[in-house]
Amino acid sequence: MQQDQTLKRLKTIEGHVRGVIRMAEEDAYCIDIIRQIQAVQAALNKVSTGILEDHLNSCVTTAIRGDDPNERERVLKEITEVFATATKV
Amino acid sequence: MQQDQTLKRLKTIEGHVRGVIRMAEEDAYCIDIIRQIQAVQAALNKVSTGILEDHLNSCVTTAIRGDDPNERERVLKEITEVFATATKV
Amino acid sequence: MQQDQTLKRLKTIEGHVRGVIRMAEEDAYCIDIIRQIQAVQAALNKVSTGILEDHLNSCVTTAIRGDDPNERERVLKEITEVFATATKV
Amino acid sequence: MQQDQTLKRLKTIEGHVRGVIRMAEEDAYCIDIIRQIQAVQAALNKVSTGILEDHLNSCVTTAIRGDDPNERERVLKEITEVFATATKV
Repeated sequence: MQQDQTLKRLKTIEGHVRGVIRMAEEDAYCIDIIRQIQAVQAALNKVSTGILEDHLNSCVTTAIRGDDPNERERVLKEITEVFATATKV
Repeated sequence: MQQDQTLKRLKTIEGHVRGVIRMAEEDAYCIDIIRQIQAVQAALNKVSTGILEDHLNSCVTTAIRGDDPNERERVLKEITEVFATATKV
Repeated sequence: MQQDQTLKRLKTIEGHVRGVIRMAEEDAYCIDIIRQIQAVQAALNKVSTGILEDHLNSCVTTAIRGDDPNERERVLKEITEVFATATKV
Repeated sequence: MQQDQTLKRLKTIEGHVRGVIRMAEEDAYCIDIIRQIQAVQAALNKVSTGILEDHLNSCVTTAIRGDDPNERERVLKEITEVFATATKV
């Protein structure tokens, strides 16, 4: 995913969050608000996954092919950490 | 959770998303962006849970104590559905 | 979902976990093991959702229609809690 | 995480699932069963994360440092895929 697409998606998500705020202000039905929040989260998951994909193909690949063992260790540890957070360990 | 708190939290989240957009524009480190997205999602989860709590104590309670079996069925089905989406069935 | 179906599904999941153990013992490819674990979790989500559905239609409905305000509060609080855990607040 | 620890954890999880089956057979309180299922899922997440960590430090590192571009692409795509599933895109 290119940076342009990431930005475009994030701006759509910002608009989506504003829509949820409007629903809350207008006292929309609770379940409809929750559903929209869940839609925002699904969109955020797609952005995260796209960013991770880019990251693996750039920084992670460079670090692993590089000569600095600390750097290699660091990038791999970060992947594990974001995966752990994503799966809520 | 009162509606005021929901709104306040959602506005904080909107600001947080704008912060993530700025990070992406300024070409911040991928993992830092992903971590901020994960923080936004944790905040959204708290809002959803708060809204669900209010909903159970108001609409759901009213519907279940009411006389319309279709309405009762509907509100309970909705709870099951948002739970299913939350757990990604 | 009836109790029979819950039990049947849980036994299938137990067999699935045993399959994952066998994969680990036989030194299967890491990603294949992770995928099977993710499949087990999707199956567990379905069981949880089914149990919640039954619970809403039985205990929760009875408590809310009943005369004990503490009991009403308790059952609704529990729903909020399992939702919060599911969404990892 | 070493393979021994993975196996040990998976066997504990198998026992935990059997415990959940027993609860269902003995008609335990729905919410208690759901909580135990959520505990099983948290344990499975820890196993997945441990396996991913090992995988990054072994297969992924080898593939990225290797000469086969298809292999490199494949291992990175797999990481993205399990992340996407974990975040339920």
